[in-house]
Amino acid sequence: MKGPVTWAFTWVNLIANKPNNCPEVERLALMAKKYKVYLVMGVIEREGYTLYCTVLFFDSQGLFLGKHRKLMPTALERCIWGFGDGSTIPVFDTPIGKIGAAICWENRMPSLRTAMYAKGIEIYCAPTADSRETWLASMTHIALEGGCFVLSANQFCRRKDYPSPPEYMFSGSEESLTPDSVVCAGGSSIISPLGIVLAGPNYRGEALITADLDLGDIARAKFDFDVVGHYSRPEVFSLNIREHPRKAVSFKTSKVMEDESV
Amino acid sequence: MKGPVTWAFTWVNLIANKPNNCPEVERLALMAKKYKVYLVMGVIEREGYTLYCTVLFFDSQGLFLGKHRKLMPTALERCIWGFGDGSTIPVFDTPIGKIGAAICWENRMPSLRTAMYAKGIEIYCAPTADSRETWLASMTHIALEGGCFVLSANQFCRRKDYPSPPEYMFSGSEESLTPDSVVCAGGSSIISPLGIVLAGPNYRGEALITADLDLGDIARAKFDFDVVGHYSRPEVFSLNIREHPRKAVSFKTSKVMEDESV
Amino acid sequence: MKGPVTWAFTWVNLIANKPNNCPEVERLALMAKKYKVYLVMGVIEREGYTLYCTVLFFDSQGLFLGKHRKLMPTALERCIWGFGDGSTIPVFDTPIGKIGAAICWENRMPSLRTAMYAKGIEIYCAPTADSRETWLASMTHIALEGGCFVLSANQFCRRKDYPSPPEYMFSGSEESLTPDSVVCAGGSSIISPLGIVLAGPNYRGEALITADLDLGDIARAKFDFDVVGHYSRPEVFSLNIREHPRKAVSFKTSKVMEDESV
Amino acid sequence: MKGPVTWAFTWVNLIANKPNNCPEVERLALMAKKYKVYLVMGVIEREGYTLYCTVLFFDSQGLFLGKHRKLMPTALERCIWGFGDGSTIPVFDTPIGKIGAAICWENRMPSLRTAMYAKGIEIYCAPTADSRETWLASMTHIALEGGCFVLSANQFCRRKDYPSPPEYMFSGSEESLTPDSVVCAGGSSIISPLGIVLAGPNYRGEALITADLDLGDIARAKFDFDVVGHYSRPEVFSLNIREHPRKAVSFKTSKVMEDESV
Amino acid sequence: MKGPVTWAFTWVNLIANKPNNCPEVERLALMAKKYKVYLVMGVIEREGYTLYCTVLFFDSQGLFLGKHRKLMPTALERCIWGFGDGSTIPVFDTPIGKIGAAICWENRMPSLRTAMYAKGIEIYCAPTADSRETWLASMTHIALEGGCFVLSANQFCRRKDYPSPPEYMFSGSEESLTPDSVVCAGGSSIISPLGIVLAGPNYRGEALITADLDLGDIARAKFDFDVVGHYSRPEVFSLNIREHPRKAVSFKTSKVMEDESV
Amino acid sequence: MKGPVTWAFTWVNLIANKPNNCPEVERLALMAKKYKVYLVMGVIEREGYTLYCTVLFFDSQGLFLGKHRKLMPTALERCIWGFGDGSTIPVFDTPIGKIGAAICWENRMPSLRTAMYAKGIEIYCAPTADSRETWLASMTHIALEGGCFVLSANQFCRRKDYPSPPEYMFSGSEESLTPDSVVCAGGSSIISPLGIVLAGPNYRGEALITADLDLGDIARAKFDFDVVGHYSRPEVFSLNIREHPRKAVSFKTSKVMEDESV
Repeated sequence: MKGPVTWAFTWVNLIANKPNNCPEVERLALMAKKYKVYLVMGVIEREGYTLYCTVLFFDSQGLFLGKHRKLMPTALERCIWGFGDGSTIPVFDTPIGKIGAAICWENRMPSLRTAMYAKGIEIYCAPTADSRETWLASMTHIALEGGCFVLSANQFCRRKDYPSPPEYMFSGSEESLTPDSVVCAGGSSIISPLGIVLAGPNYRGEALITADLDLGDIARAKFDFDVVGHYSRPEVFSLNIREHPRKAVSFKTSKVMEDESV
Repeated sequence: MKGPVTWAFTWVNLIANKPNNCPEVERLALMAKKYKVYLVMGVIEREGYTLYCTVLFFDSQGLFLGKHRKLMPTALERCIWGFGDGSTIPVFDTPIGKIGAAICWENRMPSLRTAMYAKGIEIYCAPTADSRETWLASMTHIALEGGCFVLSANQFCRRKDYPSPPEYMFSGSEESLTPDSVVCAGGSSIISPLGIVLAGPNYRGEALITADLDLGDIARAKFDFDVVGHYSRPEVFSLNIREHPRKAVSFKTSKVMEDESV
Repeated sequence: MKGPVTWAFTWVNLIANKPNNCPEVERLALMAKKYKVYLVMGVIEREGYTLYCTVLFFDSQGLFLGKHRKLMPTALERCIWGFGDGSTIPVFDTPIGKIGAAICWENRMPSLRTAMYAKGIEIYCAPTADSRETWLASMTHIALEGGCFVLSANQFCRRKDYPSPPEYMFSGSEESLTPDSVVCAGGSSIISPLGIVLAGPNYRGEALITADLDLGDIARAKFDFDVVGHYSRPEVFSLNIREHPRKAVSFKTSKVMEDESV
Repeated sequence: MKGPVTWAFTWVNLIANKPNNCPEVERLALMAKKYKVYLVMGVIEREGYTLYCTVLFFDSQGLFLGKHRKLMPTALERCIWGFGDGSTIPVFDTPIGKIGAAICWENRMPSLRTAMYAKGIEIYCAPTADSRETWLASMTHIALEGGCFVLSANQFCRRKDYPSPPEYMFSGSEESLTPDSVVCAGGSSIISPLGIVLAGPNYRGEALITADLDLGDIARAKFDFDVVGHYSRPEVFSLNIREHPRKAVSFKTSKVMEDESV
Repeated sequence: MKGPVTWAFTWVNLIANKPNNCPEVERLALMAKKYKVYLVMGVIEREGYTLYCTVLFFDSQGLFLGKHRKLMPTALERCIWGFGDGSTIPVFDTPIGKIGAAICWENRMPSLRTAMYAKGIEIYCAPTADSRETWLASMTHIALEGGCFVLSANQFCRRKDYPSPPEYMFSGSEESLTPDSVVCAGGSSIISPLGIVLAGPNYRGEALITADLDLGDIARAKFDFDVVGHYSRPEVFSLNIREHPRKAVSFKTSKVMEDESV
Repeated sequence: MKGPVTWAFTWVNLIANKPNNCPEVERLALMAKKYKVYLVMGVIEREGYTLYCTVLFFDSQGLFLGKHRKLMPTALERCIWGFGDGSTIPVFDTPIGKIGAAICWENRMPSLRTAMYAKGIEIYCAPTADSRETWLASMTHIALEGGCFVLSANQFCRRKDYPSPPEYMFSGSEESLTPDSVVCAGGSSIISPLGIVLAGPNYRGEALITADLDLGDIARAKFDFDVVGHYSRPEVFSLNIREHPRKAVSFKTSKVMEDESV
């Protein structure tokens, strides 16, 4: 990656239909195109009557590359969101590097991360809603473990950024909140494969953080520790990943069903 | 579905040839057009020398949309009707919602219902000949299970609605019947995805029952239970549905038959 | 099933370790033995640090037969309970009939029910926390659909049966509750394969409901509708069920691993 | 773990023969017994003519519990040490909790950590030679990821703690070292499952760090994130671990060899 | 092998990507084609971020036949190179004989050699960096033990063939080296199955050594000693070789995973 | 091995009954005791009516340690000798080192050698009848491969050392032999684990060759290459060795034969 590369992403809530043919997605695509940036954006996706916590990927020409669905919602999220499967754990090979994403606490899933390491991820995006200091520790660890750049984006928002009560209530804490109370403190950061924090964390307000990424650092890091290469022990540990879509019901019109043998 | 929508259907016996180019079907189409209603109508269809128990679908402009053939006739019906296959389980995406139908006791088939749920059915039509109270329990369950509106139509008829003996005899019970004896007691009903009975059941005579359907109830219901979405367990249960037509004899001019391997 | 058979069950919350070698389970086993009843009991099971909503089965001699884990927790339950898999969907062949269980809203899962129908379930137990009238509709439908007896147990409890606030609070409704307010209204019931309610529903207090089950009703019901037999259409619908345990990590000590060839 | 528990460990170099019947091991056992501590100690083990980087475990009565061999030596270590296998990844169930260990950079191996999580590790010991700040980030992440206490021990040593040149030379840097130059800066730390640093890191000199561990924090942490329990997705990711010893040559005197089929 | 056959190989260092679609490999293929020789060439292969010490095989028409990866790097090599597995121990059946290769000190591994003997190797290639006289002893022994021709290639190079310091330093010995100092003394040789040195060793400079191989010598040698045939004792010694690729992570997209049953 | 150790052996023909209670063996034992040497002696052993080519081991106090039977006779030997099995591949742990032996061309068997390497052989004795130069190459290779001292003894004898014709005839060559013709040229040698020839080979006459063995050379050699330790790849290659005696007929008085399942 020669010369400085601009990279921008953020984390917004968006009610989206299927990514294809959806006005919200088209608007994001246009933004990516207009600003000539690769855009990795957290959205709420709807398929049928189930919502998913999803990340969308766009290239710098506004092309929609694909999506990742959060595999396992956390705590109360499980009342809101469905469960992704192995078919949306993409790592896209782009001119600026191999890009993928894991969402919030699924970054803690060692097998999910290993799947992305095995796909050669170089630019590991981690949209989150966790603004605690321990998040930075996890991001640093992932950069070291995976030998990749980690770009973690978190929203910064105050009480007043949400609708007023009773339309929107923060459970059990509404009385203690002023309009300027920080609800989520941000803390976006960019970390190199050697564990160096290149930008952020910023806990003070909305911000655009940037860093020039020297992809050569990946080789430098993996020289000593290549998590799925020379430092793995495949004869002791082997991780199997099932990537086919999981569907409750499959329709076939051809006479031979592929999954007849399942 | 903005504003009130009028919906009407009933259950008649009809000897039909192929739905296309068939005067009876044209007459039904004209009715739908005249009254500007979506018409979901049970008929007896003839193909070759076999009869099928079939539902026809027309839109409010009189367009014939398609048909569903009962997959499995019940009891003595098997002496009269043939068996449908997977090629006629349609769910039509119309301006008033996604419409499909299951006939009488095939409503008890969990896999058939699941097929229609997976196609996103919103207005589930259930023409029947079962006027027992347990039928309402099944309709309520289906509304809850599928997160859809259930519209069940049953005929109300007396002995005198049929030809006189000996032209038409009710087996073994003719002597106890008066002309006003109720032969089938009706009980049509409309039930919401939350299990609320919006109209019916009416067991007292011919009637037109109506309800305004708030399709938003579907999302409200599926928030907690989405049968083929977030509440399914596709990695444990996967239902495969073969939708190709089943023919006893196929003619091919190409050298390799597609279904050779079936 | 000649002569009257006493059947008793209820729905209690219980923190259980692994079913084997667990004092709570032993106590249940002793109860079954003492009262000479088959006991089908809802419990909260703990494995490692994850809880499961589980049903335990004991025979009338106090033998622990096995368990079923709820496959998909409902709504807020997903914050508390883990997810069962296909390995605990048992139907036990006992001298009083084939017994299995589905828990609360997983009774709405058509594929889970079909799995139990395919295993020949005769005495379908449905512990629940749903005391609405629509629950009885679902139970009736399941009896008809599956051609089996349905025994649904629900707890009856008042506010005073729980600890006082602030130790235990009912979310958002505490101020409107008196000690005698009914929190869960019960409604246990027993329904025959022909859809006849043999006992219950009782919404007025704690109660023991009983019925004599004539297993011949199963054959009578299936004569007209055998959901996985003569009324199924396996060439159109085929449901695949994966029953092996799902483990995040598997350890092997023998030299030949089955997946050595992967 | 009621009441305060003293826990001590350090990281020393030791030329050991087989752990059993080895005077160095006996001396360590006596220390554990004398001070009534569980002792988790890094040693250099010799088997035949190959050395291993190993951790030994002793209970507070001086009983040798077992050992863990480093699976993959790092960088130049590979010229000195052999490779462990899957047969020495123990987690010991002791009265003070379930104890295991990973050595230095093998702590970066996500599959090794997952193996120990699956064995229920509660007290995760991480002897290391890495005194960089990023090490603390990794330890914090592991505590959060595994929902366990992490106890990381690193040596503090100065140039003068080693023999003088030419007997012992630090490669390429000898001239810049004074006798007081810090060669390895320590940084031992104890971290809770919630990511709280309970003791350390201490980079200033030899020290004994202690903390009282409230094992209830493990359940509190795993309520939201149970890495091999409710937050795993075993139907997507399954990790297989081969635990049998790997031997280049096996001798059998019985007539039936177990591995005949390998 | 009728008539004289020209055979040429050497040992060079080459940074190669994957053998397929790699310009360096294509260049080697063109050389083999141009000179109509079978080419067995040591290279440095890169996969992901891990390097392997590899031998490539080309036939005399320039076809790339396959590769062998060094199974175990020696000493400091372990800091640079990853570890091969059982999936790249090929023996190619070509018109000039059965060809395979072992790299440098892995020639000392009796089990690796036995694997190649069992595959019927006739032309055993041994690229090396060992120019000591004892190397010739090992090569002679292998020819006798395996009943095969051994062709060992080693580079001849002087200090001046490498970049000048400080760009490239020979550890600890730079001051004693003149530009003409021999760094690696060559010693390539060709040995018959009867232990006769047919060509080489040449320790004086770059050279092309050749010999006509009479493959009949193999049969003559094995008449008295057939290492995996009449002189083996399989009821006492059985060597098991696992040839499947070892992967830290495996992805599956088809619905039926081979390890689904694990 | 501090200080010089005297070691002596030779190669004689001896018709022996069972080693125990056999005058020839007692004579050898007395020699070992008298001269205070460890004695490793080739003999011809008789059991029943079959002869074996055997090596006997005695310690320096005249204690008979055990024996090794040649596993596979070579060429015409097969007309004279039976076949050993896995029960006599001993390596004796003595105060002067771990001692074992392989006879003549069975030294070419890579699996037999590996068995002895795995038993930790340090002083590898190789009585032989092969006086060709290639024998020295094999001995050198074995020393390097096994990281052990190799002591190879061969007889030196002339025609006159054998009975005169017609009592004893050398097949097809008798006429060209004078009484002083060398029949077997000796060539005994002692080689270090680093491949250095410490004594011999002597092809000129009967001789006693000696060397002081610095067992520290073994560790020095195995630092870089430990054939069954850090340089093995047990997950790729595993050698199984069956050490139980093979008997054509076994008598058992217990009802279950242990080898029933073989």
